[in-house]
Amino acid sequence: MDAAFVAVDAGGSSTRAVVVDSTGTCLGLGTAGSGNPVSSGPESVVLALGAALREALKNADLAPESVAGASVAMAGSTSVRSDDGPEHPSITAGLAAAGLAAPFVVESDLLAMFCAGSSDLDGHGLVAGTGAAAIRVRGGEVEATSDGTGWLLGDEGSGFWIGHRVVRAVVADLDGRGTSTGLTPIVLAELGIPAAEPRRAALSRLVRSVYEMRPVRLARLAPAAFVAGDDPVALAIVDGASRALAHTLGSVLDPGIAGPLVMGGSVLLHQERVAGAVETFFRQAGGGDTVIRVADGVAGAATLALRHHGVDVDPAVFTRITSSLAALRPA
Amino acid sequence: MDAAFVAVDAGGSSTRAVVVDSTGTCLGLGTAGSGNPVSSGPESVVLALGAALREALKNADLAPESVAGASVAMAGSTSVRSDDGPEHPSITAGLAAAGLAAPFVVESDLLAMFCAGSSDLDGHGLVAGTGAAAIRVRGGEVEATSDGTGWLLGDEGSGFWIGHRVVRAVVADLDGRGTSTGLTPIVLAELGIPAAEPRRAALSRLVRSVYEMRPVRLARLAPAAFVAGDDPVALAIVDGASRALAHTLGSVLDPGIAGPLVMGGSVLLHQERVAGAVETFFRQAGGGDTVIRVADGVAGAATLALRHHGVDVDPAVFTRITSSLAALRPA
Repeated sequence: MDAAFVAVDAGGSSTRAVVVDSTGTCLGLGTAGSGNPVSSGPESVVLALGAALREALKNADLAPESVAGASVAMAGSTSVRSDDGPEHPSITAGLAAAGLAAPFVVESDLLAMFCAGSSDLDGHGLVAGTGAAAIRVRGGEVEATSDGTGWLLGDEGSGFWIGHRVVRAVVADLDGRGTSTGLTPIVLAELGIPAAEPRRAALSRLVRSVYEMRPVRLARLAPAAFVAGDDPVALAIVDGASRALAHTLGSVLDPGIAGPLVMGGSVLLHQERVAGAVETFFRQAGGGDTVIRVADGVAGAATLALRHHGVDVDPAVFTRITSSLAALRPA
Repeated sequence: MDAAFVAVDAGGSSTRAVVVDSTGTCLGLGTAGSGNPVSSGPESVVLALGAALREALKNADLAPESVAGASVAMAGSTSVRSDDGPEHPSITAGLAAAGLAAPFVVESDLLAMFCAGSSDLDGHGLVAGTGAAAIRVRGGEVEATSDGTGWLLGDEGSGFWIGHRVVRAVVADLDGRGTSTGLTPIVLAELGIPAAEPRRAALSRLVRSVYEMRPVRLARLAPAAFVAGDDPVALAIVDGASRALAHTLGSVLDPGIAGPLVMGGSVLLHQERVAGAVETFFRQAGGGDTVIRVADGVAGAATLALRHHGVDVDPAVFTRITSSLAALRPA
């Protein structure tokens, strides 16, 4: 049997683990909840890693002792927000929770996202999910990063950024300071506040309900901006997000790099108005014509695991990774 | 002896209590830390109220049993953010911590701020400290409120709002996404990050240090915007704050009201550029020519305590409150 590796893509809303052999064939997939140390805390990493890995090993019918190595792609691991430090005790504990004692490498989740879209060693990546960041990749490594500084300090154009502007616009509308907007009934419904509630009472309930959430949860209000039709307040927020993401990408973009732009995260995956605007910007800025959208970074985490163990992930191996992985995904 | 009352102005950064007799003479002043249930939690209210009241009673040389009534001015008490509900158990507990069992009334801190500047029953109030809000006062009561919806949802033009924009501008500068700004060395120094630190390392330390704070503490970075000279990034933030505060005031402003504009909070008290812009707006919008700045709301809390107990706080009584209070303040 070929050597088997495990690869994990640990994200802010879910964690995916895959067992992959040295030919690129994915043998088992597992999923769990948030494994982002920044948005959910280090203890959530241990739980999510353990659960996703156990499921992947079970689906692959593989004993943990047979695993030769692991790679874990995680937010902040090459960025500025790792709170684990170089020893990554929560990753060690998460692997141990699945019976794994194999050596592991920690990779940038942004690099995994890029590698999930292409086997090219050069190119650009842009993610806009709960957070937002761009990278420039050269020789298979992250050469430059922009943003990814979190909900309070940056993440411009992200789901949080959009949801935060949405709820502020609704508060200003209800308060009488702001423009009347079609976002208001959508957000009130989303938060379970009856439409019949008088204005000030609705404002009071909205404010109370938001301060009871963790701030980063405001990202769940981002979709309101995309279902509000041609509401001018909503359109201004959406177009502001497009401009912010183009700016973040633009500040790492090198037209001398021939590879693709790989885009990921719910905003770029599901919101055509934003994704289209960013693609147009990328082409006009001389970035090239190849734009690939990926649903998650798990194929990239598998790619990085294989590369780390000396496997040349050429286009044939890469296609094997993505097609065998697709076959494992729930229909 | 005239009947004695206690009045408290409980704010986000400090709590002030005063003992006042029915002629308006202030007999003792006490101060303590934050007593804002929104920014510091209900348990802080109990501690701050108790400490400030004990000190005020001691300075007035008055036994708690001699107090005929109490008024407590507090953020959110007529606004949407009270998390105490109508029973105000933390105020009851705070009074009890100073040995007081007197009946109490809870007032809006914004109304107390207005009443600290004028004995008029009509007028407008604008506060920009850590938070920001405007009120229209008619017949001695708050007729309309604008903003005051907290750091995450509003407080446009407040110290938090300014400090948040300051730190985001510095993060964007260090990240290479944003304009180079003179705010960067000021903020790095304020956070104890050595100027010699390489750019990405400084960014990393800055991000870590901010996510370790409570978000509302970003208000402490607001002064950076005012000491950055003619730095265009800083000036844009300051002028944005002026516009936001004018807009908040404008949305409750009724030119038919003859009374003054009373302004309070550190931003309006100490930052002439913002205060001047708001005054100009107020005059041009037909609000009138009388603009009064107050350092805190304690004289207003005393005014409200007396009014609540049937004392007519005419200009003579009001002058007695403010001048006897001034004599009690530390030099």
